[in-house]
Amino acid sequence: MTEKADLLALGRRVLAAQPFSVLLGAELSAFEPGRAELRLAVRGDHLQQHGFVHGGAVSYLADNALTYAGGSALPGLGVVTSEYKINYLRPAQGETLIARASVLYAGKSQAVCRCDVFAVKDGVEKLCATAQGTIVPLGGAPR
Amino acid sequence: MTEKADLLALGRRVLAAQPFSVLLGAELSAFEPGRAELRLAVRGDHLQQHGFVHGGAVSYLADNALTYAGGSALPGLGVVTSEYKINYLRPAQGETLIARASVLYAGKSQAVCRCDVFAVKDGVEKLCATAQGTIVPLGGAPR
Amino acid sequence: MTEKADLLALGRRVLAAQPFSVLLGAELSAFEPGRAELRLAVRGDHLQQHGFVHGGAVSYLADNALTYAGGSALPGLGVVTSEYKINYLRPAQGETLIARASVLYAGKSQAVCRCDVFAVKDGVEKLCATAQGTIVPLGGAPR
Amino acid sequence: MTEKADLLALGRRVLAAQPFSVLLGAELSAFEPGRAELRLAVRGDHLQQHGFVHGGAVSYLADNALTYAGGSALPGLGVVTSEYKINYLRPAQGETLIARASVLYAGKSQAVCRCDVFAVKDGVEKLCATAQGTIVPLGGAPR
Repeated sequence: MTEKADLLALGRRVLAAQPFSVLLGAELSAFEPGRAELRLAVRGDHLQQHGFVHGGAVSYLADNALTYAGGSALPGLGVVTSEYKINYLRPAQGETLIARASVLYAGKSQAVCRCDVFAVKDGVEKLCATAQGTIVPLGGAPR
Repeated sequence: MTEKADLLALGRRVLAAQPFSVLLGAELSAFEPGRAELRLAVRGDHLQQHGFVHGGAVSYLADNALTYAGGSALPGLGVVTSEYKINYLRPAQGETLIARASVLYAGKSQAVCRCDVFAVKDGVEKLCATAQGTIVPLGGAPR
Repeated sequence: MTEKADLLALGRRVLAAQPFSVLLGAELSAFEPGRAELRLAVRGDHLQQHGFVHGGAVSYLADNALTYAGGSALPGLGVVTSEYKINYLRPAQGETLIARASVLYAGKSQAVCRCDVFAVKDGVEKLCATAQGTIVPLGGAPR
Repeated sequence: MTEKADLLALGRRVLAAQPFSVLLGAELSAFEPGRAELRLAVRGDHLQQHGFVHGGAVSYLADNALTYAGGSALPGLGVVTSEYKINYLRPAQGETLIARASVLYAGKSQAVCRCDVFAVKDGVEKLCATAQGTIVPLGGAPR
């Protein structure tokens, strides 16, 4: 097994150990140094009152993808999101949400990452949210 | 029934119409002009791999409380969160999370709100996250 | 001289050592553990094309007040702003801007602070911007 | 004169009408639909006490570049920054700062933009800050 496959397998074990991610049904579709992709097959219980995916589910996906991307670029095993900001751009609707996060900067004490969240409807991807945040090592961070 | 009770009842109907909020089990514990409080009785499936409430659940609560607070201060019926930023301060652990949001500024086209999220453990509240965001009327907004 | 006066005097020496703050004419009007207040006597060269104080000057004031507040709550001598977010609420106009920052959370590796910026016109204060950000110790931080 | 040159000329007239931008010495080096670039030739009075460009000057540049980019994508003449978030990544040092902003999403009521700020030292560009924000039309916005 390659290192890349190792990293993806490790990432998937972490995701499977997050009961909240299991509740929502997120999948880690790509994970390599500096980059992570999470997917969510949209279900009825992900929606809000207008029939779109709830902002909270979109935020969860962005937050978690940011953490994965940052974690791939920081030393040590555990990392957490220190903070992030998200702009919702369009109603999130379709079959699948895809969150693609990448590292903009990584030092010893933090990684700053971006994440775009796309909604896939009838096979067409549309950007529906974009986020930027800071990932820090566990222990060096307050959370 | 007073207007205040009317507003709370209306807010609860909206929450009950959000399948994602029902999935997570959030409750609207206070809702009046300029202010909203959401609660989450912490369950095992809200957690991440270290046993704390997942950041995604904390974010959901903050985002939704911001939307309620902003909605109480804007004209018209429908509102959405345009954007927000959240800082995680401490691991969220305990029996209950409480998100308290209030309006800092409200005009015709936006309300800017703050939200503090507290974790209640053994009856003691600790601030575990803080957020700031923009709520906009539906239609006047892209989402 | 009291400790409180010492801290204010120290803060003013730091401000005087920032050529950019001297260029803009900012003054540190209060500085104590957990709290800082910066003022800017509005000049013609602080404005933008509509006659209001330029957002960049408002941001500068918020950023710097956040750094002071955070610095008062972190160990060690040097701190920097790691990140912040600002919402502009109203046009900033009047004789003076006042940025009031306070610490929401302080640990060893970061302080999370808020700052409200008020514009004083004919003696009346109006909230014109609000910010939230993270301050980190120099050295532990990338900047 | 081409439309592109027209837009750049218009943008430069707006910048020249901002006394704060004149005070700082910013130049608009590129401006076309969806994209803007501002430059700042670093001077001694842009610095903070450690000899790096003050965060307030970096923020100003990012904020203003975001506004230009958003303005190029929104209908009507006047726009303002509604909110933005910035992460400082590295000390800003060198001869020149360059802020490059682009539009991620533009609707009728808002444009969401990103901006990377680079410091050029001995001819080498280094990313020193990154920002994300919302630009809104004047009048439709509170500011």
